[in-house]
Amino acid sequence: MCGIIGISNHRNAAQLAYTGLFALQHRGQEAAGLVTVHQGKLKIHVGMGLVSQVFKPDAFQHLPGRSAIGHVRYATTGESSVKNAQPLLFTQSRGSLAIAHNGNLTNAQELKQKLEKRGAMFQSSTDSEVIVHLIARNTRPLEDAIIESLRQVEGAYSLLFLSSQKMIAVRDPHGFRPLVLGRLNGSYVVASETCALDLIKSKFVREIEPGEMVIIEGGYLKSLKPFAEIPKAHCIFEYVYFARPDSKLFGTNVHQVRRELGRELAREMIPPPGGSVRTINSQAPLGASLGGGMKGIKADLVVPVPDSGVPAALGFSQESGIMFEMGFIRSHYTGRTFIQPLQSLRDMGVELKLSALKEVLQGKRIILVDDSIVRGTTSRKIIRMLRRIKVKEIHMAISSPPIVSPCYYGIDTPQESELIAANHSIDKIRHYLGVDSLHYLSLKGLLRAASAGREMGFCTACFTREYPTRVSPVLKEPGSFMTDDPKGEIKAIFSKKVAATF
Amino acid sequence: MCGIIGISNHRNAAQLAYTGLFALQHRGQEAAGLVTVHQGKLKIHVGMGLVSQVFKPDAFQHLPGRSAIGHVRYATTGESSVKNAQPLLFTQSRGSLAIAHNGNLTNAQELKQKLEKRGAMFQSSTDSEVIVHLIARNTRPLEDAIIESLRQVEGAYSLLFLSSQKMIAVRDPHGFRPLVLGRLNGSYVVASETCALDLIKSKFVREIEPGEMVIIEGGYLKSLKPFAEIPKAHCIFEYVYFARPDSKLFGTNVHQVRRELGRELAREMIPPPGGSVRTINSQAPLGASLGGGMKGIKADLVVPVPDSGVPAALGFSQESGIMFEMGFIRSHYTGRTFIQPLQSLRDMGVELKLSALKEVLQGKRIILVDDSIVRGTTSRKIIRMLRRIKVKEIHMAISSPPIVSPCYYGIDTPQESELIAANHSIDKIRHYLGVDSLHYLSLKGLLRAASAGREMGFCTACFTREYPTRVSPVLKEPGSFMTDDPKGEIKAIFSKKVAATF
Amino acid sequence: MCGIIGISNHRNAAQLAYTGLFALQHRGQEAAGLVTVHQGKLKIHVGMGLVSQVFKPDAFQHLPGRSAIGHVRYATTGESSVKNAQPLLFTQSRGSLAIAHNGNLTNAQELKQKLEKRGAMFQSSTDSEVIVHLIARNTRPLEDAIIESLRQVEGAYSLLFLSSQKMIAVRDPHGFRPLVLGRLNGSYVVASETCALDLIKSKFVREIEPGEMVIIEGGYLKSLKPFAEIPKAHCIFEYVYFARPDSKLFGTNVHQVRRELGRELAREMIPPPGGSVRTINSQAPLGASLGGGMKGIKADLVVPVPDSGVPAALGFSQESGIMFEMGFIRSHYTGRTFIQPLQSLRDMGVELKLSALKEVLQGKRIILVDDSIVRGTTSRKIIRMLRRIKVKEIHMAISSPPIVSPCYYGIDTPQESELIAANHSIDKIRHYLGVDSLHYLSLKGLLRAASAGREMGFCTACFTREYPTRVSPVLKEPGSFMTDDPKGEIKAIFSKKVAATF
Amino acid sequence: MCGIIGISNHRNAAQLAYTGLFALQHRGQEAAGLVTVHQGKLKIHVGMGLVSQVFKPDAFQHLPGRSAIGHVRYATTGESSVKNAQPLLFTQSRGSLAIAHNGNLTNAQELKQKLEKRGAMFQSSTDSEVIVHLIARNTRPLEDAIIESLRQVEGAYSLLFLSSQKMIAVRDPHGFRPLVLGRLNGSYVVASETCALDLIKSKFVREIEPGEMVIIEGGYLKSLKPFAEIPKAHCIFEYVYFARPDSKLFGTNVHQVRRELGRELAREMIPPPGGSVRTINSQAPLGASLGGGMKGIKADLVVPVPDSGVPAALGFSQESGIMFEMGFIRSHYTGRTFIQPLQSLRDMGVELKLSALKEVLQGKRIILVDDSIVRGTTSRKIIRMLRRIKVKEIHMAISSPPIVSPCYYGIDTPQESELIAANHSIDKIRHYLGVDSLHYLSLKGLLRAASAGREMGFCTACFTREYPTRVSPVLKEPGSFMTDDPKGEIKAIFSKKVAATF
Repeated sequence: MCGIIGISNHRNAAQLAYTGLFALQHRGQEAAGLVTVHQGKLKIHVGMGLVSQVFKPDAFQHLPGRSAIGHVRYATTGESSVKNAQPLLFTQSRGSLAIAHNGNLTNAQELKQKLEKRGAMFQSSTDSEVIVHLIARNTRPLEDAIIESLRQVEGAYSLLFLSSQKMIAVRDPHGFRPLVLGRLNGSYVVASETCALDLIKSKFVREIEPGEMVIIEGGYLKSLKPFAEIPKAHCIFEYVYFARPDSKLFGTNVHQVRRELGRELAREMIPPPGGSVRTINSQAPLGASLGGGMKGIKADLVVPVPDSGVPAALGFSQESGIMFEMGFIRSHYTGRTFIQPLQSLRDMGVELKLSALKEVLQGKRIILVDDSIVRGTTSRKIIRMLRRIKVKEIHMAISSPPIVSPCYYGIDTPQESELIAANHSIDKIRHYLGVDSLHYLSLKGLLRAASAGREMGFCTACFTREYPTRVSPVLKEPGSFMTDDPKGEIKAIFSKKVAATF
Repeated sequence: MCGIIGISNHRNAAQLAYTGLFALQHRGQEAAGLVTVHQGKLKIHVGMGLVSQVFKPDAFQHLPGRSAIGHVRYATTGESSVKNAQPLLFTQSRGSLAIAHNGNLTNAQELKQKLEKRGAMFQSSTDSEVIVHLIARNTRPLEDAIIESLRQVEGAYSLLFLSSQKMIAVRDPHGFRPLVLGRLNGSYVVASETCALDLIKSKFVREIEPGEMVIIEGGYLKSLKPFAEIPKAHCIFEYVYFARPDSKLFGTNVHQVRRELGRELAREMIPPPGGSVRTINSQAPLGASLGGGMKGIKADLVVPVPDSGVPAALGFSQESGIMFEMGFIRSHYTGRTFIQPLQSLRDMGVELKLSALKEVLQGKRIILVDDSIVRGTTSRKIIRMLRRIKVKEIHMAISSPPIVSPCYYGIDTPQESELIAANHSIDKIRHYLGVDSLHYLSLKGLLRAASAGREMGFCTACFTREYPTRVSPVLKEPGSFMTDDPKGEIKAIFSKKVAATF
Repeated sequence: MCGIIGISNHRNAAQLAYTGLFALQHRGQEAAGLVTVHQGKLKIHVGMGLVSQVFKPDAFQHLPGRSAIGHVRYATTGESSVKNAQPLLFTQSRGSLAIAHNGNLTNAQELKQKLEKRGAMFQSSTDSEVIVHLIARNTRPLEDAIIESLRQVEGAYSLLFLSSQKMIAVRDPHGFRPLVLGRLNGSYVVASETCALDLIKSKFVREIEPGEMVIIEGGYLKSLKPFAEIPKAHCIFEYVYFARPDSKLFGTNVHQVRRELGRELAREMIPPPGGSVRTINSQAPLGASLGGGMKGIKADLVVPVPDSGVPAALGFSQESGIMFEMGFIRSHYTGRTFIQPLQSLRDMGVELKLSALKEVLQGKRIILVDDSIVRGTTSRKIIRMLRRIKVKEIHMAISSPPIVSPCYYGIDTPQESELIAANHSIDKIRHYLGVDSLHYLSLKGLLRAASAGREMGFCTACFTREYPTRVSPVLKEPGSFMTDDPKGEIKAIFSKKVAATF
Repeated sequence: MCGIIGISNHRNAAQLAYTGLFALQHRGQEAAGLVTVHQGKLKIHVGMGLVSQVFKPDAFQHLPGRSAIGHVRYATTGESSVKNAQPLLFTQSRGSLAIAHNGNLTNAQELKQKLEKRGAMFQSSTDSEVIVHLIARNTRPLEDAIIESLRQVEGAYSLLFLSSQKMIAVRDPHGFRPLVLGRLNGSYVVASETCALDLIKSKFVREIEPGEMVIIEGGYLKSLKPFAEIPKAHCIFEYVYFARPDSKLFGTNVHQVRRELGRELAREMIPPPGGSVRTINSQAPLGASLGGGMKGIKADLVVPVPDSGVPAALGFSQESGIMFEMGFIRSHYTGRTFIQPLQSLRDMGVELKLSALKEVLQGKRIILVDDSIVRGTTSRKIIRMLRRIKVKEIHMAISSPPIVSPCYYGIDTPQESELIAANHSIDKIRHYLGVDSLHYLSLKGLLRAASAGREMGFCTACFTREYPTRVSPVLKEPGSFMTDDPKGEIKAIFSKKVAATF
């Protein structure tokens, strides 16, 4: 989970990139950074924490230049350390090179071992650094070296490179992660999502295509397609949860897709007059399924788990005609950076963030809508909260199928052993959560809503275990990738607390 | 705007009070503090910033004891300085005394001058300190001294005192600010709102009544009514905006009152079949009024300004049958403590916090619902944002009457000269905001929804200029109260940045 | 132990006062502060820590004005808290008033109790605040109110007041603590020591006389002598240890007095040809005395304990002809503000600060010179260090008499029970320290060197138990003064660590 | 200028190494760090600032293990950045490796370019990293790889390596920088200076010999001499200024050498009865020389510039019979970490640190003794200070020859263009400084005192321009080494101010 942005040829490159990172903050809250190029030299500023914590007013005087790339990070590989904060910046014989990466490589470990045997030393514990070592050892010109290096890597990558001469954007041939191109007068902008283009008031031009490489230099843009064409595999979980609702993603607005997921779910759950509950059945090997029975559900309210469940709940309410209600208050004072000093409150967890409206929900039969269930622990706490205030019936409706396997392409899902739906029947989950009935959207329903009538290639591996690429066995091991990297240990001093004072 | 909490006779008094403050954070984000009593001595910990910033894990080891009072502050009088953070703690000849105050005194300045002439020296620039000086100069026992002192002050006060012996709660005879009593096994809890009782899982017992004084000592509670009975004047703005939606206030749940305000507004705006638009007319001496004409409004969506407009928009949608839609995304990464380093982004302001969903709103006719308009500047920015994405028609619906005069009882409204509705006609405001029509709820409608069929006494001074107490002319002067207090100058060093490291 | 400075009528008043405080840092390292007056308002900046820690570059923009008073504090009364950092600033009916105090009042507790009974509330736990409360309750003009108030207090005070109109300096009639007047072009400077005048390149004019009150206003200076004349009691310990060697104090340079103390000590210890060891005998009623026998001492080197023993050791060497040697290296990296993270190193203590030169001292017979012995613990550690490197003989020579009683006039000596010489014979001390012989300068010798031929009145209470004033029994109690003041508890949050970030 | 320490096989390895670094603080105040090995993994903690600032109490819980190496750094090559703080820690195919380096390589730039052409990427801008890249590309076992790598580098290096298995110490064949071996019960200690051994109470065993490699593993020590024998070149400036006076260096105590330098200087300056001023003459091609004439100098006092001039001044006084006097007070409150907020005080510079004793020096003829003159700016300020207080005659005596060329072996001398004696005659310097006469010790005198009768090989390049190794022309360029390294730019965020909060 990361977000990237690049600005080429603008006199406030760093400021614009910073503003764009602000809009991409939901893609990564652990670290942030910017690299600019000024008079042929690359300048870097990175730190742990939110964009607003990493960049203090005086940061920008150290970041002059007309081009910039930026990154927000939530660790997928590597440990939490400022050494892993991106953009990464390297000196090579051909000069300096910065890289910002969204995605995850699936053969990084093998490549890393090969490189180390040939004397390479790694300075971060990120998979992204593998790409730069491959480039460093390639003696051909930069663009060719990048192409030849990327031909060796497998997995998901939306990449931005910045050298003293040019900015280069590449998206992997599967197109796992989004990457869009924008225009701001004479400047080019590349970003993970369109919401970043909007905030800096630049115009959306088009997506960078899967397998496309875009080189921007001196105000000109050159596009290459250097990789063999393969089926697309857009991450469908970006639609379900990850992307920002106001972004236009893979051609459609995210909020609208989510609302449609809610409508689809309502249609699946509520039999049309004279019909039967459609895809909701527990025989389905994966996905849509029902704990308890559906027939005869009568509900008073559709209530979303804020904020992620709101669009689907709206769609569900609109389709079903059941009244929508905001049954929870979400506190704005419990951010990620807040470390609770009291154990008693750490145990509370979600209670500090959400409070249920007793007077509104008491005695009611509700459809509780959320986008997905990962471990089930948070959902369970929310449901207990509802039980305490005497909600009469709780029917949980999830606007995506059960998550049964981890993502190796950049979403920070836990290992299979921690995924509740990978290990338990729908009925067991229903019991664990303590709801009267539990409903998941079917895969078919998900794909229908996500495709919106178009011919689309999606990666649905987290719901289906069907990975679009080879998956190295090492990835499946607990701890994965480079956790034995001693440099990761540096984290002790570059803790969040320190970075917060940058 | 402040919140207070007291815990008597619990072994984790400080931790519970801290947790309660967390639930009261919306009542004040500028400073926070706790005082406990341990072995006859009072311990204090105060600081600038959010509760989570002021209290770090090691704070509680300095706060032992079985009783505690706490406070969150948003400055109404006095400057922003740690010297003004409450609880205030004083040594007097009868021992130590701490005070936590929600409200605002209207004759503090006169009393202060009198006291200074008699040799008193003030250590804060808050009106609350006046009370303590009066008590210090009263030689009678503490309870009597408090009563005699409070008989001299005018205005709004929900107060908590903590001495080495007892905890005392008092609410002014008008009952401006809320104050509730709760029970947690053998302990008593007093708090500004019931949401604080809920979070610490204590039971709501009843409101502390207007004019009531409650003394809690050694596990026993004593109630006195030492003041002459006068008409009640509950702050109606607590219902409109200030209190937390999940609190039960003056006998009713806040979210439900707000939803009812939306319903009422819909009824006022949309003529019943064959009827006419009811209270929406510009002849009304105050409040409900319409810029543009109402007849024939046809709207596609009811859209709240998040989060304050959500409950009223839900009610409006339910009453009118017009579809509810979340047309804005609210960022969770722009807190109060975030100081934007770039001027360009400071200018953005609300754009960083809210983004409008273009695909959802474009080409639509919307009812934009908010709870109130103060200066009008934020509303205007939001409306411009909507215009940029080509919303077809914007009809703004405000779930309270126009604010025409400042609050002297503890809500931090600006002076009259800055209140847009105090100085401009509804039609002028409509032009300024750039909406197609503008509608305020009528005072009658407001009172109907707030009273919920009961006989209630409300302070509606901000909508009507009718103040329930004498208002000293000095209060109307810009800067008010004690701004010439040199001690206020200490703020230079106790800036927010410093306090964040406490 | 404190230092004060005042600047009147200079456009860089705060900067000069700050610079002066820098030179007075040895008088107090716990807290520092400045108050300026600008356009009739008083501005304050105080914090815990060294002058260089409390004042960061942006502090001065909040301290405009042509007059300033400053203070460095090492707690004598009151606890360690930013509430006690001076100058103290108060609002009274006659306007704002700041006070900076060096010294200690001996009847503060009685006065405080009286004031509290009359309704006064104290905001610090310093004795200095008593003076301001007395002034606040006096309705006469400021100068008269100060005089009448000071007539009620007993003890030691060198004071600076700053009001919106004038700067006032007062020295108590005994003249315990120093206070000097300087001139810098058209400006007046008042400071604890001449070294502060030197650093800001102002000219020494004269001492403020004991019992004198100097009012500086509008560039003019007025001198009053409002107190009855009484015998002088200059603190002789300022000469022995406390004042800075480059200051001119009570008319003589401190380094020269200290060198003379060493010469005097040499004369006492080493019999003139044909004579006998003079004052070194244990029959002396106080002070000078010898553990072991003196006759026949033959020493190779005179070695000072750095830095306090250096001047006396130089004098001793010059008088005795025994070679002076720097036998210790003093580390410059162990300041007061350094909190050792390892217990093992905290135990080391003096070893981190001093290291003995083995090659220089091994096998030698040395005269080890220090200025005084308080508890004896540090001396003992130093001597053990010397024993470890096989110094052959150690003859300890102290350039003052044994300290037998605490100071109540502003020097932070411990209670009598902790003073080694108050409780043990010279011979016992010699055994405890582990030296071959131990020699103190006689009181007569001390007075001879300090007087330098002049008629001088000194306070020698710490050596003689003869206090120049009445001493309230409460002062002799452990913990003294105001330690039950709950406001002192505020220290928990204003810890040194916090202040370091000011 | 750096200091290193290693502890092998002790249960408090990190704590001991930390304590040792404390004693080595004078060798580097810019950054500090420790690496330990625990259960086969290397743990690191580094930061900018003093040892006491970098290591806070909780640092040690992250540094378990029985072996540790530590480093204090004052930048010689590379920029000031936490990336350059040592020990450096790397992952290689053979596992993790940490390095701590005192010294400077003279062919680092050439080696770096070669390595980068072969795909190496550097993570710091230190010369030390070159060594590790060479080792990483060597496929032989670690010890052999180190030997073969070091055979390729030229210059000065006292090195400590730490792998998961062993600690390795190496000293270059010239023996430029010191390195000593100690014993603490069953543990081995390696350190830059014996003062570190003393502080942790370990026994000095012997020097690590020039060209020696010591491998410590499992409690056993193995010594190799893998390099061809070449003439020794001990840095003579360690004796003159750099090492701590209480260390035993190259076989002799430093304080004693310095005192002897003063004696030698006195002998050179003061003609023996009937003789002539010996080596003090301006015809000498380098070094000892005299501005003004010597004959007839009559001085009242020998006064050192504290602290560096003290030992030589003592020796001078003892040899000449002229009275020694501490003519300056050195403030203990002006550390390196103190950034003066006022420009006016930054201009003061040395005045804040030193104050001259007017009463002691006024009207006197003094010999002012210092160890060396680099740029001359500080000496000039000191002399002006003396002139202001009317010192009658100032004869400056420097206990080493004129510094005429930079050090490329690890002492941070400025470029030749900034060395006053490289560009000006002794007489010109005398005028610039404003002294009555100026005297440098002759090279012959320096060598005589430093050798103390032994056969010793010294590097005297800074006094003679005779470098013991080839000196790459690139070293002589301003800015030197790797300043175009973009990673150096990271310094913007890791500024001193930040690091102070580590």
